Amino acid sequence: MAAIKVHGTPLSTATQRILACLYEKETDFQIVPVNMAAGEHKSDNFLALNPFGQVPAFEDGDLKLFESRAVTHYIAHEYADKGTQLLISGSNKETAVLELWKEVEAHQFNYPASTVVWEVFYKPIFGMATDAAVVEENETKLGKVLDVYETRLTQSKYLASDNFTLADLYHLPNMQCLLATPAKKLIESRPHVSAWVKEITARPAWAKVLAMQKQ
Amino acid sequence: MAAIKVHGTPLSTATQRILACLYEKETDFQIVPVNMAAGEHKSDNFLALNPFGQVPAFEDGDLKLFESRAVTHYIAHEYADKGTQLLISGSNKETAVLELWKEVEAHQFNYPASTVVWEVFYKPIFGMATDAAVVEENETKLGKVLDVYETRLTQSKYLASDNFTLADLYHLPNMQCLLATPAKKLIESRPHVSAWVKEITARPAWAKVLAMQKQ
Ligand SMILES: N[C@@H](CCC(=O)N[C@@H](CS)C(=O)NCC(=O)O)C(=O)O
Ligand SMILES: N[C@@H](CCC(=O)N[C@@H](CS)C(=O)NCC(=O)O)C(=O)O
Repeated sequence: MAAIKVHGTPLSTATQRILACLYEKETDFQIVPVNMAAGEHKSDNFLALNPFGQVPAFEDGDLKLFESRAVTHYIAHEYADKGTQLLISGSNKETAVLELWKEVEAHQFNYPASTVVWEVFYKPIFGMATDAAVVEENETKLGKVLDVYETRLTQSKYLASDNFTLADLYHLPNMQCLLATPAKKLIESRPHVSAWVKEITARPAWAKVLAMQKQ
Repeated sequence: MAAIKVHGTPLSTATQRILACLYEKETDFQIVPVNMAAGEHKSDNFLALNPFGQVPAFEDGDLKLFESRAVTHYIAHEYADKGTQLLISGSNKETAVLELWKEVEAHQFNYPASTVVWEVFYKPIFGMATDAAVVEENETKLGKVLDVYETRLTQSKYLASDNFTLADLYHLPNMQCLLATPAKKLIESRPHVSAWVKEITARPAWAKVLAMQKQ
């Protein structure tokens, strides 16, 4: 039995973030399915793993964690010598650039992107009505963020450097959902963003996450 | 002239995060005031420092950064041997707990807290009308987050450990604003949260940030 357990479902964007990281790191793990439709993420057992009652939760031996980005940070450091190098090594000034682009994902990209994804990707799946005004407002915000990315990606191949890092990986789940909706125009109308999204969504580790979803 | 420059204003919560960190670290710096009322944060000069056109922006010699949490991460590592130790040292498993609570601040606390702060603290200052429905919705969300903190703070004195870390520091600006509004009931009704907020807002470094604001 693998020491690493991911409690969640490959249909959840936050769970996907951890799965992508584990596949990049070529690390053994087992997924412990959480039946969200049955409310299992609000059960006492699950709340002991994540008091916010959200997937994913994570275990590595006796370490228990939640918050997908905290988990991937741990995996990238703990398994630094396995698989893809997802960090920037060097001086504090050099590694600061990775922190910067991780924070940009968290505080500029994530809110408008995940709001649009909820409205145009997930709500239709659950038979709920999309709120057009919310979509419009957040597409505008997201477009402005992607304008900054477009310029940034003329300076380096990936967001934080010329190598793929956690900063890029964090974007995968929402970008993949956006590509399946009319909001993909926001990506496709920006050539550097478009090439970058094509590149990161084509990674073999990400293909494994998508394959898991289809099972 | 100090090597560290903080472009911003002590009235901005995100700028305050950096100032608190610099005072904890007892590091020399100069503040470069940005006149937001005059739209200086949207000028070409400022956009070259932060392409999102938001304060703060930061320089340390030839390093240019933005995003307040990325900046404090850099300061805490670069000036690790000065002032307050804001990090957790040890194995990856031990440091993962700090990442976890930093992520909780970013992805659970920040949105409802800063939304309430905008509605009940800043909007009245700018002569704008508070949206009661938005306040109610986000106070409910914030209350649930603080319930998790209440339990957590029975286990350790501060969020990530028994010592003050970046995870606590990140909460200071929004907590201070909440204390000045009726939303302080959310803090005061939870004894451990209330004691923790009292403790962190009483830190001498934070008092210096508040004194700067009054100038
Ligand atoms: N910031 C969290 C977000 C987790 C999250 O939003 N999970 C969703 C599924 S992607 C969930 O469990 N939603 C159910 C709920 O919030 O009740 C992370 O990155 O791990
Ligand atoms: N995530 C950013 C947020 C920066 C931010 O929201 N700054 C505000 C002042 S506290 C601002 O410049 N607002 C003006 C604007 O967005 O146009 C950080 O932490 O540095």
